Amino acid sequence: MKIGVFDSGVGGLTVLGALVKQLPSADYIYLGDTARLPYGSKSQATIARYAVFSARFLVEEGAEFLVIACNTASALALDSIKNAVRVPVLGVIETGANAAQASSKTGDVLVIATDATVTSHAYKAACTERNLRAFEMACPLLVPLVEEGWIEHPVTLEVLRVYLLDLLTQSRAAELTPDTLVLGCTHYPLLRPQIERTVPAMRVIDSAEATAGQVAEALNDRVPVDSVGAREFYATDSVEKFKRLGTRFLGSAIESVGLVDLGG
Amino acid sequence: MKIGVFDSGVGGLTVLGALVKQLPSADYIYLGDTARLPYGSKSQATIARYAVFSARFLVEEGAEFLVIACNTASALALDSIKNAVRVPVLGVIETGANAAQASSKTGDVLVIATDATVTSHAYKAACTERNLRAFEMACPLLVPLVEEGWIEHPVTLEVLRVYLLDLLTQSRAAELTPDTLVLGCTHYPLLRPQIERTVPAMRVIDSAEATAGQVAEALNDRVPVDSVGAREFYATDSVEKFKRLGTRFLGSAIESVGLVDLGG
Repeated sequence: MKIGVFDSGVGGLTVLGALVKQLPSADYIYLGDTARLPYGSKSQATIARYAVFSARFLVEEGAEFLVIACNTASALALDSIKNAVRVPVLGVIETGANAAQASSKTGDVLVIATDATVTSHAYKAACTERNLRAFEMACPLLVPLVEEGWIEHPVTLEVLRVYLLDLLTQSRAAELTPDTLVLGCTHYPLLRPQIERTVPAMRVIDSAEATAGQVAEALNDRVPVDSVGAREFYATDSVEKFKRLGTRFLGSAIESVGLVDLGG
Repeated sequence: MKIGVFDSGVGGLTVLGALVKQLPSADYIYLGDTARLPYGSKSQATIARYAVFSARFLVEEGAEFLVIACNTASALALDSIKNAVRVPVLGVIETGANAAQASSKTGDVLVIATDATVTSHAYKAACTERNLRAFEMACPLLVPLVEEGWIEHPVTLEVLRVYLLDLLTQSRAAELTPDTLVLGCTHYPLLRPQIERTVPAMRVIDSAEATAGQVAEALNDRVPVDSVGAREFYATDSVEKFKRLGTRFLGSAIESVGLVDLGG
């Protein structure tokens, strides 16, 4: 079983890292569309076009199951991708909403994500389907802070305080009593301890972990248990930068990255 | 005279705004390659490919003079653009270095810019040609802070303090005595007052203003003085977002934006 994992950049490696822990013997092919990131600030039409190119590449390279690790692409392009390829496709919004449903006792959840994911209200829609009320907020500074490596920096702690207290205030003004916070962007798991310290009353859902758990459930009987599979990495821009940044997100070294030109 | 102004996004509108002040009667056509921004984190080959597409579009639409308002494209793609079109091309690195030369008494200047601009050392090379010593530093958090609108926010003031004091310390350790700071990114002029307060001993060079002055010098006798020219705006992604964000950078309202597909 070869699992394709797609993201606009290196952030989806947090999802791959969680998958490898759950299903080490599967083969993995990862594509980061780094030439065209970030998707978070682009329009639906542009994101769908880029995501379909990327999904087709992974299937052409042998992927039998696709995980859309990019929240923005899951929010805005999942149907386009499903229409474009003939393999099963799972997005992180659906898996994150499932995990929120399992976690929340009050039925009210908070979601932090990129601009485009929030504007799409994809988490809100997925939560509504599960009888949850969701309150979403864009946190556009968190991705650059993570990429700058300012994980424990006072500036990052202050930005989290500003965003999360604003989110709590707004959600309470809307008469929600949230008990669960969904990290709706693949970069945010790197700030999970800092986020948990800022809002200690919230149960934090890391959609990378949630996704890996649900992929493992779907595929478990189709993946051998006693071997270690292959890992292939591709990027559409600088492979050196992908290796350097990516290692931090994956949690282990990336030996080799192929450069692929998807046009544009 | 129709002047084409190119940037990866809305930041170059600070250059267009300065140009319009100096040469109000010229016609302007502005292209923001918003579908593929930011250029600052991409590789040289990718940036050059995108910039050449964009420059060709402007010339096909009638531009007789091109201003590359994007520091990253000026740093990494100016020669590619000059080879691809038959009109004069001026980039903001050259004009910024000219202004630094006019400003600095010590001959030592500081430059803040995006990752890609700094990695290219284009400012350093342009300064060296002018017998200046330059010390460059990437400030990747400033663009997202400006786009978030956190201009007078305590977080932004703290980020500026961290970056600029680090820059001063490092440049002094390298035995420079800088008296001039070049804002090597089109977003930074929006933080100019905050930057001037943080490092009051530095003369701050805004390359938007410097570029407009030098374009006016080059073209003055070819532009009528008693009329107001046309302004056209194009973007490769969401025109609504371009209008909303762009107004802040241009300093006046943007009525209409055309959507253009450059492929990819």
